Amino acid sequence: MAYEFKQIHRVEFAETDMAGIVHFSNFFRYMEVTEHAFFRSLGLSIFTQIEGGTVTWPRVHADCDYKNPLRFEEEVEILLRVREKKHRSLVYGFTFRKREGEIVAEGTLITVCVKVDEQTSKMKAVPIPEAISRMIEAAPEANSL
Amino acid sequence: MAYEFKQIHRVEFAETDMAGIVHFSNFFRYMEVTEHAFFRSLGLSIFTQIEGGTVTWPRVHADCDYKNPLRFEEEVEILLRVREKKHRSLVYGFTFRKREGEIVAEGTLITVCVKVDEQTSKMKAVPIPEAISRMIEAAPEANSL
Amino acid sequence: MAYEFKQIHRVEFAETDMAGIVHFSNFFRYMEVTEHAFFRSLGLSIFTQIEGGTVTWPRVHADCDYKNPLRFEEEVEILLRVREKKHRSLVYGFTFRKREGEIVAEGTLITVCVKVDEQTSKMKAVPIPEAISRMIEAAPEANSL
Amino acid sequence: MAYEFKQIHRVEFAETDMAGIVHFSNFFRYMEVTEHAFFRSLGLSIFTQIEGGTVTWPRVHADCDYKNPLRFEEEVEILLRVREKKHRSLVYGFTFRKREGEIVAEGTLITVCVKVDEQTSKMKAVPIPEAISRMIEAAPEANSL
Repeated sequence: MAYEFKQIHRVEFAETDMAGIVHFSNFFRYMEVTEHAFFRSLGLSIFTQIEGGTVTWPRVHADCDYKNPLRFEEEVEILLRVREKKHRSLVYGFTFRKREGEIVAEGTLITVCVKVDEQTSKMKAVPIPEAISRMIEAAPEANSL
Repeated sequence: MAYEFKQIHRVEFAETDMAGIVHFSNFFRYMEVTEHAFFRSLGLSIFTQIEGGTVTWPRVHADCDYKNPLRFEEEVEILLRVREKKHRSLVYGFTFRKREGEIVAEGTLITVCVKVDEQTSKMKAVPIPEAISRMIEAAPEANSL
Repeated sequence: MAYEFKQIHRVEFAETDMAGIVHFSNFFRYMEVTEHAFFRSLGLSIFTQIEGGTVTWPRVHADCDYKNPLRFEEEVEILLRVREKKHRSLVYGFTFRKREGEIVAEGTLITVCVKVDEQTSKMKAVPIPEAISRMIEAAPEANSL
Repeated sequence: MAYEFKQIHRVEFAETDMAGIVHFSNFFRYMEVTEHAFFRSLGLSIFTQIEGGTVTWPRVHADCDYKNPLRFEEEVEILLRVREKKHRSLVYGFTFRKREGEIVAEGTLITVCVKVDEQTSKMKAVPIPEAISRMIEAAPEANSL
């Protein structure tokens, strides 16, 4: 059972804006890329074809608090922690830190497990499949972000 | 004194992802584009060159709650309301609605007025300049999002 | 029969990079958005569900020549011309011009009409459907970009 | 003297579109990220502060030919070759290949060395600085893309 994952991202030129810093919207892409790498590290995919449709994880909530600017070519460590595991939903906390320890940002993603019907393209919330649920748990309290 | 602004966006193909809906990170770009159009509607710019540097508005917080999927070529109405006006900061609430009234998402941006030093590129929070402050006010309570 | 289309885009903050100008990759999104608006202006969509799959238009070639920088909040006129209409393919030329006439960039998109099989997700080139083909023609020679 | 560089990219969810494949505009970002990693591998940066301004490398031309679709979580090898080195300009060729060898796309970037004046933000083409020029050469003919 896993509850955290960490990876490094080096800021790309196209992620900066004319203020010379990473555009704030990119932190949400950084969160997602880390979430997906977390799934892959467990042998899972965030987008799974099953009979009659696809299981995937749209977001119902996202937030980010920005503490310090992040610039081109800087490396940022992205730490994902599972904050809550519910019947149909996972809550992740993220901490963005520069190599020397300075916190850049902190964020949250709340995702819901859905099945997309292949005929209608409609989404329906479903319980987290057993194959996924047995791999992931919430981080212990004292450890939480 | 203005406290709200509304505009329509038609979803672009590049804004969708393989789940067939608008990628969640794009809602933060939609909020920003609306904030900037609000400034322009008042004859202001979000990025102003002044003596010794630039006045601009980095974000300290952003959040979004997603209610319903939004798809390619759909039109979404983005309503900005000024929720709070502080000495150095503005808080905006956003409501995303489809033409027929269905709410797609609701979000928040908290921005801080900073001056970027042209020598050092350092940012320093400053009081909202009078030229901006006299144009914008918080929305009346009963009206707020 | 139509062969050209024009629209205005105002540069967004998130489209700039730390060099203070529009990131070069965004011109390809601008081309696509104009292509799709051209289709809509004819009552068509670039992405059409038909029996057994979807008809859409992936690119086989894209290019852009950059002449002058484009900056935040500037308005750019994007002119699309149909340069060639083939059995399964359309070739578009684009000219990007500032309001005062200065050329910013010139580009090309070559697109192929494909059917995406809904079972396999495989793409297969198909003749341009009659409903589309009778609406679009190549621009007259003397007029071409 | 270096003339080629290779790296692997794993396709991110946000890079796909509703057609289920990588949006074509992202290949231009992939080229740029590889160009910048090439510079870093030589101890250089694509964006260098010097006295009175910044030396950087805007594009005058970009193109891409798309051969095969690329999908979420697939790994693509991006091979950069220096095709030409001129007095003020570098021409790069790129080959995108899946792990098993299938070619996904081929592209070109032509970049010009400029100095951005810190007072006026104007760009002026300048000869490639010696510190950069002595590190990079054109790929031998027989080897070129």
